[in-house]
Amino acid sequence: MSHEPEHKIHEAAEPAESDVGRIAADFDHIHALCEILEPAFPQIEAGTPIEDEALRVKLTELTVLLSELHPADVADVLESLPQRERNIVWLLVAPEDDGEVLLEVSDSVRETLIESMDKDELLAAIDDLDADELAELADDLPHQVVYEALQTRDEEERAQVQAAMSYEDDQVGAIMDFELVSIRADVACEVVLRYLRRFESLPDHTDKIFVVDENDILKGVLPIRSLLVADPEELVENVMATDVVRFRPDDNVEEAAQAFERYDLVTAPVIDENKKLIGRITIDEIVDVIREESEADMLNMAGLQEEEDLFAPILDSVKNRWMWLAINLCTAFLASRVIGAFEGSIEKIVALAALMPIVAGIGGNSGNQTITMIVRAMAVGQITGIQASKLLKKEVGVALVNGVLWGSVMGLISWVLYDSLGIGLVMVAAMTLNLLLAATVGVLIPVVLDKAGRDPALGSSVLITAVTDSGGFLIFLGLATIFLL
Amino acid sequence: MSHEPEHKIHEAAEPAESDVGRIAADFDHIHALCEILEPAFPQIEAGTPIEDEALRVKLTELTVLLSELHPADVADVLESLPQRERNIVWLLVAPEDDGEVLLEVSDSVRETLIESMDKDELLAAIDDLDADELAELADDLPHQVVYEALQTRDEEERAQVQAAMSYEDDQVGAIMDFELVSIRADVACEVVLRYLRRFESLPDHTDKIFVVDENDILKGVLPIRSLLVADPEELVENVMATDVVRFRPDDNVEEAAQAFERYDLVTAPVIDENKKLIGRITIDEIVDVIREESEADMLNMAGLQEEEDLFAPILDSVKNRWMWLAINLCTAFLASRVIGAFEGSIEKIVALAALMPIVAGIGGNSGNQTITMIVRAMAVGQITGIQASKLLKKEVGVALVNGVLWGSVMGLISWVLYDSLGIGLVMVAAMTLNLLLAATVGVLIPVVLDKAGRDPALGSSVLITAVTDSGGFLIFLGLATIFLL
Repeated sequence: MSHEPEHKIHEAAEPAESDVGRIAADFDHIHALCEILEPAFPQIEAGTPIEDEALRVKLTELTVLLSELHPADVADVLESLPQRERNIVWLLVAPEDDGEVLLEVSDSVRETLIESMDKDELLAAIDDLDADELAELADDLPHQVVYEALQTRDEEERAQVQAAMSYEDDQVGAIMDFELVSIRADVACEVVLRYLRRFESLPDHTDKIFVVDENDILKGVLPIRSLLVADPEELVENVMATDVVRFRPDDNVEEAAQAFERYDLVTAPVIDENKKLIGRITIDEIVDVIREESEADMLNMAGLQEEEDLFAPILDSVKNRWMWLAINLCTAFLASRVIGAFEGSIEKIVALAALMPIVAGIGGNSGNQTITMIVRAMAVGQITGIQASKLLKKEVGVALVNGVLWGSVMGLISWVLYDSLGIGLVMVAAMTLNLLLAATVGVLIPVVLDKAGRDPALGSSVLITAVTDSGGFLIFLGLATIFLL
Repeated sequence: MSHEPEHKIHEAAEPAESDVGRIAADFDHIHALCEILEPAFPQIEAGTPIEDEALRVKLTELTVLLSELHPADVADVLESLPQRERNIVWLLVAPEDDGEVLLEVSDSVRETLIESMDKDELLAAIDDLDADELAELADDLPHQVVYEALQTRDEEERAQVQAAMSYEDDQVGAIMDFELVSIRADVACEVVLRYLRRFESLPDHTDKIFVVDENDILKGVLPIRSLLVADPEELVENVMATDVVRFRPDDNVEEAAQAFERYDLVTAPVIDENKKLIGRITIDEIVDVIREESEADMLNMAGLQEEEDLFAPILDSVKNRWMWLAINLCTAFLASRVIGAFEGSIEKIVALAALMPIVAGIGGNSGNQTITMIVRAMAVGQITGIQASKLLKKEVGVALVNGVLWGSVMGLISWVLYDSLGIGLVMVAAMTLNLLLAATVGVLIPVVLDKAGRDPALGSSVLITAVTDSGGFLIFLGLATIFLL
């Protein structure tokens, strides 16, 4: 048995209240209190007493409410507040919860909180954290603070922090945790139970014990469920499972998350190239990965660069969004030049100017439907090379039906409205062709982005709209110029 | 101790291979084999021997590959295949895995699979399922099959199936599971360990044992982690946790998922109004809820009604998407009439036709950024009434900066391009105003949808584009008509 029962377990208690609805009510109450207290921010920050009796009562009320919240709930409260109110809440949070809360908030909010703390406050906040947690925060902390925090740890922990920090955010190594229980294969289950009893507490989410040899090479896992029903005399090697889902620290976290989803895992071992056990992944980290991944897809499609602090200062928000707006402006300018090229036609038939956004709009909408569906299927790993061409065929079929159907509807309306069969027919043709274009490009954009190793969701909504706008104008005005003039 | 160790545990073994990458390679291989075998579908379906030696070899190869896959992987393979190839794979899947696979596939694909099976096949497939699993499938199965399947169950199970079926898909009752271990508070930990040893196996994800009184009223939970380190002589009531996160069967599953995320739960008890323990929720169901919820938001924003079978027949896809396309067409028509109202102005200054999509486009893009951010924040419960007005203020600020900034860039370009300072100034003003409109409506749409009890993501992307298109044309052409003519 290689690990001694020496783990410090840092874990917040589950909340005292159990009703799901109560949290929402608490949030409303906290928001209301913060708004009232906002003008007193300077006094609260300076620690000077507040003269107004009513405000003092509210401050106490808020402090009590916050002290009853789980750190994860405090994190959500902080996310949902504008800067000054956020700072008030952050000042009132119990210092011993600071570390946990910092772990729970988003990167952008974490930055604003860390900025408001001095070195000693930061050191106190991270003093209780595990190696993997410290590593998670390290990138956002001042170097000096990380350096001093590491001095207080033993050599093994320092090595763990450095190992965890050496991985990219999207690698398993970055979410790996070092607290685990391991045993040898040649002992009886009874001995394992006695061994476990020597721990003060077991690491979070311990659903299995890792079975290793004398060199820490992973031999199998002993699920606690099996341990509990096993004959106490039985040897671990006869009870353990050997067909184990294992990960390497450089595996992609999203792929690891898919494996957790597929095989309903709670924890899984991480091994190095020599099959040596170096850590484990737990479901709570995986749940965060799944949430962040889906959010990232959604934000990326809309052209938002990263998770944005809801109440970021205006200029930060502008910076976060400028790139896709600029790209959009360029593509809109291109579309504008396409129209410019047909100014002669529009001068002659001004109805074209009114009808052209319909052609562009339906293409954009339909293209977005296609691209969203494909990005989703890619996120769960359902699309490979061969499938893409089949999907393209199907989407083109859908576009053809929709084009003829809605094109005819619009063509009929245009015919009646402008009393010109020609305009009606050009509408049918242009809408059908633009929907076909939207389907084709809607499949190609994510497939090409994926093949190029980029996130298929990245700005895909902006890109498809660019194509269907310029393409739609070109097709419609081009057809009109050829057939109507 | 109220529950006897009589649980049948139906659980697929973890996959033999552990490398994350291997699954993707297998999928590619399976896709390639399916494509080769597709022409032989009639023989495979009829069960007649295939003459072609090479095809027979491929068929065996595919059968072996599939038999090595976990049911969850088989489900993913089925999702990613066109109809005929999907049917081939489904015919080759071992009948004992059929039930598990049906549970794993999406609703739309499940329908296609069930349609291809006769009554006896269906009965065989669901024979092994637990009460909660049977309830999950029941809606999609023919009534006669459900009826006959229920006859083979004992009364308790029948009651469980009916209870689970009585809840809506978004209620905790629908994902609740009835397999759990419960004990009394006044026994020693050692007795609990002996009791557990009498089980053949424990329910999946058993991380805690539920402590109840003689009326099954929930008194607390005994985490296995605590049981393992507890003094064997100690009574359960001294070790158990009483501050438990509990759910009611009519709680919303998304709120339950948020609680699981916040408090890092693996399982949680479900109680009725008298605090009687009636079931539990497990993290694997919650992971599915989180994934589905994020996907639904993404699909809803793009105007897709529900999770669509990637290879649905073309007409099914058309049906799935027609509503939002129709809405889009209506809003595009409205925008077109706005332009129509200014045909006189466009006839005089044809440049207006070329510039107006830029104003509309940037509004749509920026509005989508705002709305996406807010839908995301709402999904994690960060936005309440008071916050909405503050967010509005912030988004309007961002829009003002972006409007003046990008408006000036575009204004300058238009001035140079059309050699008209007036056109340039109208561009600046129109872009700024449309961005302000986009920000306002981008905050209001999800907030109003949410207040009205609707999903804030529902078609929000289509709606915001509608507003920024019509609004953009109106603002730009209106300003041009007033100041340039």
